[in-house]
Amino acid sequence: MTSLRKPTDETLLIINDSKKDSDLFYASHFLVGDPLIYIEHGGRKFLLVNDLEYGRAEKEADVDEVVGTAELEAKLRGQGKTARLTSIADLFLQSQGGAQKVAVPTSMPFGQARQLRELGYELECREDPVLPERWFKTPEEIEHIAGSQRAGEAAMELVIETLRSSEIRDDLLYHDGAALTSEGLRKMAQKLLLDKSCQAEDIIIAAGDQCCDPHNRGTGPIPANQTIIIDIFPQSEETRYWGDMTRTVVRGKASDEARKLYQDVFDAQDGAIKQLRDGACGKEIHQGIVELFESRGNKTEERDGSKVGFFHGTGHGVGLDIHENPRLGKVGHELKAGHVITIEPGLYYPGVGGVRIEDLLVVTEDGHHNLTSFPKGLETFEI
Amino acid sequence: MTSLRKPTDETLLIINDSKKDSDLFYASHFLVGDPLIYIEHGGRKFLLVNDLEYGRAEKEADVDEVVGTAELEAKLRGQGKTARLTSIADLFLQSQGGAQKVAVPTSMPFGQARQLRELGYELECREDPVLPERWFKTPEEIEHIAGSQRAGEAAMELVIETLRSSEIRDDLLYHDGAALTSEGLRKMAQKLLLDKSCQAEDIIIAAGDQCCDPHNRGTGPIPANQTIIIDIFPQSEETRYWGDMTRTVVRGKASDEARKLYQDVFDAQDGAIKQLRDGACGKEIHQGIVELFESRGNKTEERDGSKVGFFHGTGHGVGLDIHENPRLGKVGHELKAGHVITIEPGLYYPGVGGVRIEDLLVVTEDGHHNLTSFPKGLETFEI
Repeated sequence: MTSLRKPTDETLLIINDSKKDSDLFYASHFLVGDPLIYIEHGGRKFLLVNDLEYGRAEKEADVDEVVGTAELEAKLRGQGKTARLTSIADLFLQSQGGAQKVAVPTSMPFGQARQLRELGYELECREDPVLPERWFKTPEEIEHIAGSQRAGEAAMELVIETLRSSEIRDDLLYHDGAALTSEGLRKMAQKLLLDKSCQAEDIIIAAGDQCCDPHNRGTGPIPANQTIIIDIFPQSEETRYWGDMTRTVVRGKASDEARKLYQDVFDAQDGAIKQLRDGACGKEIHQGIVELFESRGNKTEERDGSKVGFFHGTGHGVGLDIHENPRLGKVGHELKAGHVITIEPGLYYPGVGGVRIEDLLVVTEDGHHNLTSFPKGLETFEI
Repeated sequence: MTSLRKPTDETLLIINDSKKDSDLFYASHFLVGDPLIYIEHGGRKFLLVNDLEYGRAEKEADVDEVVGTAELEAKLRGQGKTARLTSIADLFLQSQGGAQKVAVPTSMPFGQARQLRELGYELECREDPVLPERWFKTPEEIEHIAGSQRAGEAAMELVIETLRSSEIRDDLLYHDGAALTSEGLRKMAQKLLLDKSCQAEDIIIAAGDQCCDPHNRGTGPIPANQTIIIDIFPQSEETRYWGDMTRTVVRGKASDEARKLYQDVFDAQDGAIKQLRDGACGKEIHQGIVELFESRGNKTEERDGSKVGFFHGTGHGVGLDIHENPRLGKVGHELKAGHVITIEPGLYYPGVGGVRIEDLLVVTEDGHHNLTSFPKGLETFEI
């Protein structure tokens, strides 16, 4: 991978596990489930690693210098000090001429920040985005995201094909003699994704009233004639980039009300996608969808203590995190060429059903490039 | 689940996502991938959740009161303030009589800690363990851990059975006509675990020199006649508890040197397990293994820039985190009845092979209960 991050003149310090911290992986391009120390100082990038990781880091990390911590740790112990990560970073910075002011992510643990202050550093708390260049995807990153999206599309096809070929008995769906369940379909999709070296722990396959709660992954038998929301977001184990897509289908006959919801969401998504271009505003696009839904009689309100209508954002950036900037919602950013975002309006009314349609797109100078080619259609026999 | 956490009189504040923060899940027993605010105040437990989660939290959370944040957010906005998580927590605490001093985990993001200080709170940084009772497992927790371990054993059996029934050609292993690879075996195990509602992203199946680096998950074809380390640690999607076990096998004929390594690791593990009881010292048990290995001529040292011998800890606690306290190693805790720990000595010599054997055990008053019943043996045809 080509270098994604050019160091600035400022001293930047990130201490974390690069499996948990995408900024750290982005900056270092070295993946490990144990704490790393990443330092930008004097215009150079350093990665301080446990000696166990040294050989692999030398090969894989995209930094100017990899430093094994064993020697620094031994030196600290020799001085009667505890070899804390912050002390190791301090000792290394001293060997590089020292620094007084250090930028750290706002997510740095409070305990570590306190230790750094005690070591005499003035901390500059870097609010999100820690690395603003992460918003803009390179062609290589876009290819990684597209790869995960293609894996997700294969899983979507398997799920929808299984629904389509199921048999309806007593308003439930049967396949190979057994009732189709959210859990069974999710596992089926996860296995296919595993074969494509992707993990997708939280696939949503939820039907009927369940899918009116966008946080419900779905449980139990899938009913016929009701909306089924299938939201698949796989992360590649190899590249670490995510894909994200949602389709809503009905196996059997959709009600007229569900069909109207589907049409309204389809039109909202279509209209929003047409507005994408460099300079478009995420907040305005979201507001446009809110107004379209209202104008077609889909109220967003509280009923029986639950929200109904359209009560989530329109989209979010996708990359090394499944939800990252920019945002399209009540808080909405200006979109720029190179942003990769979802457009995913939804409408949810218990008793009628839930509909969400989500594509993953690259914003371009004068429009967009859709990374999702999976067809859309409500009733599975129509697809 | 019975209540695991009784609140203290102190005010405790945790703000995190309970999928990432096991303390928060332990304290609240509510699982969600979005930020939650957990507060202990005046001897009561409160959980502040997004209104989308309110219904489920009411049903599932093990707290005295679930509070939806919509009203608090609206109030803050009405005062012209941003509805940050820290401001929401502050407003709620004020409604409960207020607090001046608040205990927070050392992992709290620096940015949030700063906001709380600006709101006038004095923070007490709670070092690990944030919730000391997590070290001691209840019978129900032990059953959850045992359940994940049984799933891991089924996956281990599948992997070893596949190795055993493989055909050796040109020093490689073939099964159903294709070369057996680390990746293929890992996926096979992951699929079986999925069927048991467990995820195990990082299963290690590494052979030959690869397995001499304990962080290498293994890639490529599995060679015959060389050591293969299989380390399976599944987490139940339902209970969130982990299992952890390792076996080392050879398909074909082990060298005399590898056989000796195996015997030494086997004896070290056996001796360590026999020392387990309430009051045993994790540091002493580790030191005993270090000495046994040395007395049998297995040097731990650096060769060609890499560590060889026994260079990791002897064991760690297992529960809602795969690696948690207590530790058995250079830093070692006193073990108490109710701790669930691994015992996993290993020896690694490139050119000869790597051997690690790991069981998961409950420490009891006068000994231990082994949660692992999977047989041990080096050459797969012997098992």
